[in-house]
Amino acid sequence: MEPVDPAFTAPAMAALFSGEARLRRMLEFEAALARAEARAGIIPADVAAAIDAACRAARFDVAALYREAAVAGTPTIPLVRLLTATVGGDAGRFVHRGATSQDALDTALVLQMRAGFDLLEDGLFAIGATCAALSERHRRTVMPGRTLLQQALPIAFGLKAARWLGLATRGMERLRALRGRVLVVQLGGAAGTLAALGADGPRVTELLAEELGLAAPDLPWHAERDRVGEVAAALGVAAGSVGKIATDIVLLAQTEVGEATEGVAPGKGGSSTLPQKRNPIDATFALAAARLAIGLVPVVLGALAQEHERAAGGWQAEWAALPALFGHTAGAVARVGVALAGLEVDAARMSANLDLAGGMIMAEALATALAPHLGRPEAQRLVATACERAVSSGTDLHRTALDDETIRAALSPEGIARALDPASYLGSADTYIDRALAAFRALQPSPAPRP
Amino acid sequence: MEPVDPAFTAPAMAALFSGEARLRRMLEFEAALARAEARAGIIPADVAAAIDAACRAARFDVAALYREAAVAGTPTIPLVRLLTATVGGDAGRFVHRGATSQDALDTALVLQMRAGFDLLEDGLFAIGATCAALSERHRRTVMPGRTLLQQALPIAFGLKAARWLGLATRGMERLRALRGRVLVVQLGGAAGTLAALGADGPRVTELLAEELGLAAPDLPWHAERDRVGEVAAALGVAAGSVGKIATDIVLLAQTEVGEATEGVAPGKGGSSTLPQKRNPIDATFALAAARLAIGLVPVVLGALAQEHERAAGGWQAEWAALPALFGHTAGAVARVGVALAGLEVDAARMSANLDLAGGMIMAEALATALAPHLGRPEAQRLVATACERAVSSGTDLHRTALDDETIRAALSPEGIARALDPASYLGSADTYIDRALAAFRALQPSPAPRP
Amino acid sequence: MEPVDPAFTAPAMAALFSGEARLRRMLEFEAALARAEARAGIIPADVAAAIDAACRAARFDVAALYREAAVAGTPTIPLVRLLTATVGGDAGRFVHRGATSQDALDTALVLQMRAGFDLLEDGLFAIGATCAALSERHRRTVMPGRTLLQQALPIAFGLKAARWLGLATRGMERLRALRGRVLVVQLGGAAGTLAALGADGPRVTELLAEELGLAAPDLPWHAERDRVGEVAAALGVAAGSVGKIATDIVLLAQTEVGEATEGVAPGKGGSSTLPQKRNPIDATFALAAARLAIGLVPVVLGALAQEHERAAGGWQAEWAALPALFGHTAGAVARVGVALAGLEVDAARMSANLDLAGGMIMAEALATALAPHLGRPEAQRLVATACERAVSSGTDLHRTALDDETIRAALSPEGIARALDPASYLGSADTYIDRALAAFRALQPSPAPRP
Amino acid sequence: MEPVDPAFTAPAMAALFSGEARLRRMLEFEAALARAEARAGIIPADVAAAIDAACRAARFDVAALYREAAVAGTPTIPLVRLLTATVGGDAGRFVHRGATSQDALDTALVLQMRAGFDLLEDGLFAIGATCAALSERHRRTVMPGRTLLQQALPIAFGLKAARWLGLATRGMERLRALRGRVLVVQLGGAAGTLAALGADGPRVTELLAEELGLAAPDLPWHAERDRVGEVAAALGVAAGSVGKIATDIVLLAQTEVGEATEGVAPGKGGSSTLPQKRNPIDATFALAAARLAIGLVPVVLGALAQEHERAAGGWQAEWAALPALFGHTAGAVARVGVALAGLEVDAARMSANLDLAGGMIMAEALATALAPHLGRPEAQRLVATACERAVSSGTDLHRTALDDETIRAALSPEGIARALDPASYLGSADTYIDRALAAFRALQPSPAPRP
Repeated sequence: MEPVDPAFTAPAMAALFSGEARLRRMLEFEAALARAEARAGIIPADVAAAIDAACRAARFDVAALYREAAVAGTPTIPLVRLLTATVGGDAGRFVHRGATSQDALDTALVLQMRAGFDLLEDGLFAIGATCAALSERHRRTVMPGRTLLQQALPIAFGLKAARWLGLATRGMERLRALRGRVLVVQLGGAAGTLAALGADGPRVTELLAEELGLAAPDLPWHAERDRVGEVAAALGVAAGSVGKIATDIVLLAQTEVGEATEGVAPGKGGSSTLPQKRNPIDATFALAAARLAIGLVPVVLGALAQEHERAAGGWQAEWAALPALFGHTAGAVARVGVALAGLEVDAARMSANLDLAGGMIMAEALATALAPHLGRPEAQRLVATACERAVSSGTDLHRTALDDETIRAALSPEGIARALDPASYLGSADTYIDRALAAFRALQPSPAPRP
Repeated sequence: MEPVDPAFTAPAMAALFSGEARLRRMLEFEAALARAEARAGIIPADVAAAIDAACRAARFDVAALYREAAVAGTPTIPLVRLLTATVGGDAGRFVHRGATSQDALDTALVLQMRAGFDLLEDGLFAIGATCAALSERHRRTVMPGRTLLQQALPIAFGLKAARWLGLATRGMERLRALRGRVLVVQLGGAAGTLAALGADGPRVTELLAEELGLAAPDLPWHAERDRVGEVAAALGVAAGSVGKIATDIVLLAQTEVGEATEGVAPGKGGSSTLPQKRNPIDATFALAAARLAIGLVPVVLGALAQEHERAAGGWQAEWAALPALFGHTAGAVARVGVALAGLEVDAARMSANLDLAGGMIMAEALATALAPHLGRPEAQRLVATACERAVSSGTDLHRTALDDETIRAALSPEGIARALDPASYLGSADTYIDRALAAFRALQPSPAPRP
Repeated sequence: MEPVDPAFTAPAMAALFSGEARLRRMLEFEAALARAEARAGIIPADVAAAIDAACRAARFDVAALYREAAVAGTPTIPLVRLLTATVGGDAGRFVHRGATSQDALDTALVLQMRAGFDLLEDGLFAIGATCAALSERHRRTVMPGRTLLQQALPIAFGLKAARWLGLATRGMERLRALRGRVLVVQLGGAAGTLAALGADGPRVTELLAEELGLAAPDLPWHAERDRVGEVAAALGVAAGSVGKIATDIVLLAQTEVGEATEGVAPGKGGSSTLPQKRNPIDATFALAAARLAIGLVPVVLGALAQEHERAAGGWQAEWAALPALFGHTAGAVARVGVALAGLEVDAARMSANLDLAGGMIMAEALATALAPHLGRPEAQRLVATACERAVSSGTDLHRTALDDETIRAALSPEGIARALDPASYLGSADTYIDRALAAFRALQPSPAPRP
Repeated sequence: MEPVDPAFTAPAMAALFSGEARLRRMLEFEAALARAEARAGIIPADVAAAIDAACRAARFDVAALYREAAVAGTPTIPLVRLLTATVGGDAGRFVHRGATSQDALDTALVLQMRAGFDLLEDGLFAIGATCAALSERHRRTVMPGRTLLQQALPIAFGLKAARWLGLATRGMERLRALRGRVLVVQLGGAAGTLAALGADGPRVTELLAEELGLAAPDLPWHAERDRVGEVAAALGVAAGSVGKIATDIVLLAQTEVGEATEGVAPGKGGSSTLPQKRNPIDATFALAAARLAIGLVPVVLGALAQEHERAAGGWQAEWAALPALFGHTAGAVARVGVALAGLEVDAARMSANLDLAGGMIMAEALATALAPHLGRPEAQRLVATACERAVSSGTDLHRTALDDETIRAALSPEGIARALDPASYLGSADTYIDRALAAFRALQPSPAPRP
């Protein structure tokens, strides 16, 4: 219920999904239901006002209530009893009119999810903003591109940051697209017909949705949890996406790579006895949190196969899985945000690493430069030979290229140097950076201030 | 590579994602790349024509090629070598110009996914059409609504079918929304800069996208697999959604419930020695396939944390995971489609089951009918007493209600009978059915004929 | 960190794996390490005594310590600093001598796991004891056996309970076998060589193990987590096993089956407005807890691929995953235990359900009785015909068998009745029950009283 | 059904678990059942001989049979029909006597698993043998130990190999322990009572087990799949364990680390245009296969919650999940075996990497050497200062230590050099290597030649 270890979650998200917060959201539902039913003429306006007031003022022993819920089957049962008693008298019997336990729980969940999306969007936006700045600043910072962790061709660090930025931008777009589909109230009554409200069910549902700023669904969805599944899946994608950034940070921070390290902070990541260490603590915990988040996705998806009009087990599993999933996803997002915000980029080391393999990372570039003169096959053959010679003689490609008569006949020493300059072989990196920046900047800010 | 057991997959989907189909898609990429590069003036038009022709005509030993791929690291390497040899001579060296192995593999995947979405949409549409017909036909077919597998209140079977319909409709909408985000080409060259194409990278990418009828992404996405993660997640949601329908069918078909059974077919689901059995074979295999599909979602999501510019392990895991995921999802969808198409609904049994608990499923309805006369609390108290009496005396609620003087004073025998008639207590079921039908009918047909 | 919703976990297990309990276990490690090092002559005996005393008396702000840990990378860092300060002076610098953060954390985990196994064994034993009693009591309680949820052949409820019993027995055996393999101390120092202890590493490790009542491993296992993976897997098996029992309970409790229901308790599982409901609350939450537990298994297994001498992410994920896994597994076990302990078995309903399909559940038995007289093929043909006639005429197999001249010629009316008596066709159920009981009773009680 | 992409599976394992191999195993069951029933006097000996002969000689169209199975519900139904027809006449009706479809399928699975364990043990043994050789050879090969991918303290490469060896040894032990618990026949008849065999069920079960060289279980286990769950879990642990080795290889092979690379082979892992690359292909595919294997574990565990006497969905999911799980696990094991067998270790690079951080990896060692002279706190303070000076002046710890008067007063230049020699600070690495070797060598060879 409470994924509160701050190492793996974001405290603000943990607060949104705490056991107490859930009860408050349920009271928000009960209050809004009463107001909606008063507007629909089903219960008296003063009764609705009394219920509304009681919901706002309610005090309860959270732990005791959950202990009772574990026996009763839902927290709604003790909560409604308590609310009925608080309202008291004649008015009390109008509490929760026509609704079922699941209506309160699911609508509370939707309200929590809405606030959770806000937090996640904020977190992704912060990541995006940092990555945008890194992209701009490091457009010309040349570093090795690595495939299967082997140096392949030079790239710009700004391009890597732009690709991270793309993850954040698309993550925000994905969450926004989701809102329209999933932020709907739940109101179906005991078996999804709203029979206890006679013919007024749809009208009350729409008023309830209006009261809560949510949409009204076509029909109740007690046992059709595809929307919930979609939310879980989207969070898994978000967690995995920031996990990619964290992976890169951990790898860049390796002692032998040393191209970027997390910023220092008091008490962070160091070791008194191992002074050379700069542990990538935030990225590490982000990776842990992402693993934890993703593990919950199949729990929610596996629970979609629900029985009849209300499930025995699958639905209840959501109560624990979704708070943990939001918490861990937010934790991963937040810690990647921190890691990026303090990232120290070592451009000199990036440049030095490009030379590690005797300049052979520029072999393709040299062959490309020679191709117009010698034809591509001959160019590739010559360069391969020069590379072999560099390896066997322990020198580098620049040296063996200069020593090769055919190459020298085709290219001047300056031409060879230019062909072997990584900064000259970045392809369309600049365009890609521009596009990633433009897409991020095109994101509209969130439409409204948030409570 | 080949999830071909027809029990758990749809043969058409298995064919789309077979090892051979993948190689054909890769050749489709190579042909389109050559045409795009010719249009961009990078390679001669006749060379492009030769490559295109070779791609169409290519013959290869699929098994041998994959054995080689397992050593080389990707199937692109042997395939491009083979294609280069087929094209031959000067033209051969223009094959795959500027691209990397992953470009061919990822674009092939996207082409497979597009065709896979078509199949899944067709399957969901078929489910929707059957459910729409069931909803209409069974608007007034009253049956027990069940929560935690206990009878709760009456519902209409048409409402249950309408809820299934909603799953299909939203599933189709979800897949359609996905297409715009994920059907993009991959073209980045060895490290995602398209350096070998000089400044022409973006232009070639757009032409390539045009040739293939896909979109061009802002930037290459070799190691940013959020789109792939989103596809996996959406398939998991689809599999889980139809799993819900399958669960209901299995439960309805129980000997003791007997409200709906899968249709008979030669050789299907029977038992020579157990003549009373009507095994729900299609729903059973749908459930198995859904489990298998959902198990693959975290594999793909967990692989999002990819290293640098190309992953070592995470990306490759997709090659096996995605074909299996598409196959199993399609299998679940197809078998639920078959189960529904032949579903035999036993309205009489539904009605009879409503009487199983001594009519107590109508207790809430009776209390609602009494409330205007006696006030709700007194009405509920009286009905509870009548229920207890029914249980202890082994009779039913109708009998004990008629025997209760206060109830009789409030309602006539006809009024009691009416209050206890399940058909009178279906709430807004009709409206919900109408809405589910309208949402399904509002889905535009797929925009274009499919190859 | 705190999977404390009592709906999904067992409070005693949650207490064992709370954040505070973990810190206490770490102090237990630090105290035992000091004692071991004193015995090995590495630190003075009085220093060890001072450290030991400080560990027992330590007070700390748990939440603050975990906030610090989230920055520092492990809770060991602030805890050791605090402990060093508490011990004070010269003695303080001997705290944690030679050890690394992970040594304290992993050994604490092993101590928690040992206590966790005790709780799980107790829970499985309780399930076993109840199932043993049910097996004995219901040896002759005939009920329908169901395959694919269709009635197949009669079984005894005692046999079903014996199969549940087998799950509990094997679950206990599995946990016991595990103890010997996984309950080992962790002591490796900063990189797994125990270099800071010079040549004394193995000796200190053995003394430490002795102090804690654990085994000493061949070598430190900082990044080789197969033992942890095995624990996670075993818990997943345990959760799945009791999930099978919970599934059966939910299905037996269906209104239309009604063969067994969870016992009533104040506030449990009822509904004021739906008096006929007897919600299987404990089984429902057991199923939810089992789903949650199983979802954590691949998180732990996926984290086995750890980097070098200490992982960045995979190890840390265990810190949240294992407490939740133990908690949810214990929750599933505990709630199945409660469900079984109060189970109300309705033998009359079991018997009545056997008649639901017109006695056709006995078709195989009748054919078997006829076979000696008519040959098996002819016997099967005749019975199949009688079944068809029973279905088409709306009567039952007993009736149509009596009406069939060939059957009547082979068997007397009493012979037919005997052949159609479910109690006569239980095969080896009795033997199986005896064996399940014997295996359970053969389990030695736990060897020692537990602290 | 056929996880045959050789990139992710071992061909020998794929063959063991192919659709055809499964049918052959089922025939093995049918033949053994007939022989057992003849020995028990239930069917005539010549009939058993005829069935046995027909099982050996059977020919069938595998694909057609599985298409039929997908409709019928199990492959047993068409297979038994075909076998009955092959045997023919009177003898034919004794085929499959008393058994149910699941008996044949589950026993066939157990036979496949037994052979699968053999293959996995062989693979783990090969890994162990290579690691044992590496441990011996590299006892004194000093390299950086890395925690959170940061250099921490020196270790020996032989110790790393010894830890890998420990994974292989424990993996073999775990599989061996498993055999005794899970290699049991399945024989229960239609509902687990063996009613059709009258009182002979247990006797036939024991004879059947004897015929097949398996154990007889206490009672049938149609819906109690804890043994299968345990197998899945063990395979997940094995896959994760070798994934750890693969992770290390990928990381060691990085261009910037270069301490170990996979051996070259024709067509393997190179790149014509990127000559500097030495892609760790085998480790990469091992990691992919391990991810795929682990993803299947929760599918099998989640399916443990089976319904009544035979599940609808959960059991069937095993049919696809287990072959894939065995295949992917074997693939991971096999490819790690290949990667290790050809591993090229670069001891010079390991040594050079130790110097990367200015010798600060030896800070703890220097402080330990100074402690007897200066007290530990003062020693640590001095070393920390020397480290800071080394960083700020761009020199190394050796230099600043020699320049520090207090340090020089405590240790001679030779003493300082010795303290800073990584080879002098390997702690108990030697002992650990010895122990890992001893544990591996203590493994008894497999008890019997395998068919």
